[in-house]
Amino acid sequence: MTGTRPAPGAEAGLLISDVGRIETAGAGDIVYVSGKEFVAAWRASACGACITTEELAGQAPSGCAVLIAEDPRAAFTSVASYFYPPGEPLDCSTPIAPDAAIGRNVRFAPGVVVGSKARIADNVSIGANSVIGPGVEIGADSAIGPNVTVFYALIGARVVLHPGVRIGQDGFGFAPTPQGLRKVPQLGRVIVHDDVEIGANTTVDRGAAADTVIGAGTKIDNLVQIGHNVVIGRGCVIVAQVGISGSCTLGDGVVLGGQVGLADHVKLADGAQVAAQSGLMRDVARGEVVMGSPARPIRQFWREIAALSRLTKRNKGP
Amino acid sequence: MTGTRPAPGAEAGLLISDVGRIETAGAGDIVYVSGKEFVAAWRASACGACITTEELAGQAPSGCAVLIAEDPRAAFTSVASYFYPPGEPLDCSTPIAPDAAIGRNVRFAPGVVVGSKARIADNVSIGANSVIGPGVEIGADSAIGPNVTVFYALIGARVVLHPGVRIGQDGFGFAPTPQGLRKVPQLGRVIVHDDVEIGANTTVDRGAAADTVIGAGTKIDNLVQIGHNVVIGRGCVIVAQVGISGSCTLGDGVVLGGQVGLADHVKLADGAQVAAQSGLMRDVARGEVVMGSPARPIRQFWREIAALSRLTKRNKGP
Amino acid sequence: MTGTRPAPGAEAGLLISDVGRIETAGAGDIVYVSGKEFVAAWRASACGACITTEELAGQAPSGCAVLIAEDPRAAFTSVASYFYPPGEPLDCSTPIAPDAAIGRNVRFAPGVVVGSKARIADNVSIGANSVIGPGVEIGADSAIGPNVTVFYALIGARVVLHPGVRIGQDGFGFAPTPQGLRKVPQLGRVIVHDDVEIGANTTVDRGAAADTVIGAGTKIDNLVQIGHNVVIGRGCVIVAQVGISGSCTLGDGVVLGGQVGLADHVKLADGAQVAAQSGLMRDVARGEVVMGSPARPIRQFWREIAALSRLTKRNKGP
Repeated sequence: MTGTRPAPGAEAGLLISDVGRIETAGAGDIVYVSGKEFVAAWRASACGACITTEELAGQAPSGCAVLIAEDPRAAFTSVASYFYPPGEPLDCSTPIAPDAAIGRNVRFAPGVVVGSKARIADNVSIGANSVIGPGVEIGADSAIGPNVTVFYALIGARVVLHPGVRIGQDGFGFAPTPQGLRKVPQLGRVIVHDDVEIGANTTVDRGAAADTVIGAGTKIDNLVQIGHNVVIGRGCVIVAQVGISGSCTLGDGVVLGGQVGLADHVKLADGAQVAAQSGLMRDVARGEVVMGSPARPIRQFWREIAALSRLTKRNKGP
Repeated sequence: MTGTRPAPGAEAGLLISDVGRIETAGAGDIVYVSGKEFVAAWRASACGACITTEELAGQAPSGCAVLIAEDPRAAFTSVASYFYPPGEPLDCSTPIAPDAAIGRNVRFAPGVVVGSKARIADNVSIGANSVIGPGVEIGADSAIGPNVTVFYALIGARVVLHPGVRIGQDGFGFAPTPQGLRKVPQLGRVIVHDDVEIGANTTVDRGAAADTVIGAGTKIDNLVQIGHNVVIGRGCVIVAQVGISGSCTLGDGVVLGGQVGLADHVKLADGAQVAAQSGLMRDVARGEVVMGSPARPIRQFWREIAALSRLTKRNKGP
Repeated sequence: MTGTRPAPGAEAGLLISDVGRIETAGAGDIVYVSGKEFVAAWRASACGACITTEELAGQAPSGCAVLIAEDPRAAFTSVASYFYPPGEPLDCSTPIAPDAAIGRNVRFAPGVVVGSKARIADNVSIGANSVIGPGVEIGADSAIGPNVTVFYALIGARVVLHPGVRIGQDGFGFAPTPQGLRKVPQLGRVIVHDDVEIGANTTVDRGAAADTVIGAGTKIDNLVQIGHNVVIGRGCVIVAQVGISGSCTLGDGVVLGGQVGLADHVKLADGAQVAAQSGLMRDVARGEVVMGSPARPIRQFWREIAALSRLTKRNKGP
């Protein structure tokens, strides 16, 4: 099924019951390791099986059955597709599922849909025509606006979601194969901590394997994109139309100006600041302020703008 | 409650019935003045009370009780939160409120929700699953698309709102406090004049204290962000994915290319034009055309691009 | 009505029954030709009538009645407005239209609205509060998320539309007239081929005259804007917050990084790649990789960034 071959010593009869992520996988889970940078985590992992390359196969921790593939990620995608067929619909034949747990003083506007086993705490209000997916939890005193969709998510207390917010849809993960782009199953959740506010029509994708996390007290403006596996700290300020690519990590108190873009896997330390419209392709240190596309230290950016201006003046000279 | 202290002469028994904005406040309203630039408006104001700094307290107009705070904006936020608790839900237990005023030949698609005391004029059509908040007014012959939300707004005649438009949610206003970011209450409206067209999934925030205004005949594309207190003139053209920060002012006939970003409080005079993807950090004069991030006169921008290109050619030389 | 005058030889009694586009118009259709670049297509067209300029009138193919206008596009707009009055509402008085054709094993979540004569194939699921317009067709095994709107569209098989996607609303087309901006009727459709996936809150406008097309297997991320008449090839990857202006053409396997912007009528050949945040104002050749705003070959971009950095260091010297 996977197009892999077992490494010497791999137990052929091993029963795998789920796909997992390397940090939390147990004896019944299969994971994949596609590069050297994941070997340390792999060696510390309790995973039952792992798909990896010929080159890395010797690094397996004891007790881990190894399958070898040319492209471990693509092979893992095949396995994950087997456990989690894409496009599986929700069973929500009644607007408010009878087995949802609804707290005291919860107010539903007309057209609200709540999925099976969702848990809505006390004093939550949910705006008209919003959809809360199965199993979603929403903490006390939160205010969900109209036309919002929330799936695969744990939402904290006193959270505000403005109209049109999209939480928990699949992230953008596709593996190139000879038959075209194949979807990598998106299995994680979105964790939104207490006192977060998220602006209108902002999108927050569910994690691919790990979760997407937004820390307590962080404020996010309208039309922001937050990719899968992004982890955002506490008290951050993220202005409108920012795009945060998958697996970025933001510390506490980070400020991103409007229309900033972050390449994937970028790390911003506590208190980092990125000026509006900047494009970030590298990590930012604690308290550092950067600007430009590609982003550089803000003083350097302004020196370069000034130098460029002088250059044209000189060129116009005699 | 506010952490302020009365200035000498402030009447302790004064009854304040509302928070206000400096231009329109009356004897029962409290406002705040956080810097010198607001003193002229303050001196012309009929406000009953004002929170300001020690330094500015002496500038108060006669009849205005002065409260002194280190951070007037944060103190005002406390007062406003008292008058307007955040997250207050809408009372819309019936899809079309019985006390809404509905004109002749108004067509509601399935799932439409209309709040209390809303006024919908003749020949308006409202698409499926759209939500019109309490007190909203919509002028004759307007066409509201499906899955649209409109709150705290006056909409003119012959206005077109495309699917997923968000009008009137809270703007992005938070005051830093020792306990984290605290929401500044958003109290203004959105005024959309006649013959405006607004594209799919565009967001227009309600004013913070003043109103957000879009002038007659202005056309706005998809996925545009318009912040609180922005005032846009007549006949402007705003292309997709533009972001306009809070309190910007656009004259008549302004053209903003796609993905342009405006810093807050920027002013564009009549006929100003901003090329696509530019980032505006300063005012633009009547008829001026600017480009780049940061934006500069368009000729200068192209001269700099050319100079930069020549520079690399020179550097490659012997 | 049109403010045009017939060219010598134009048959005054000709009956025109529709507006059309130059490539597909028949004997009953009127089109317009506004510049020399359209003359070749015009001469191959079977259109019954055409509005054009004095200068181009002599180029008409035989059998085409010519009307002369100073601004052919504005005159055409008047004619099209007559055939297609803007803002015409949908007739959807029942949530699922009785004359819609619904396949086997189709699952509707609560609040779904389906318009007249829509065709939904087998095994399609449609999420809560989504709206499928009249005449829309959706192919087998497609998964439409919640709060999605689809109008004037043919959707293929195995297509995934994430929450809040907007398909088929009017594009951004306005002709300047002495009375202000006048809407150019948007008459085309959106064609989405098999195996396409479109991210949350992305917007795809219907064609103006021709159709907007998305090729098989193309994957589009969240908050992307796709303008009218855009034609996208197969297997393209379009990352979040990209903006594609009207009438752009993308070949197969094109990759656009996040927040890229394309000016209108730009052509990208097969395998072209555009780095994140770039702004494209010219065509891109097969397999070419470009970066920057304005975009240039990626090596040149990085050389210029390095040269600019060196320049400031030199300037700091003695």
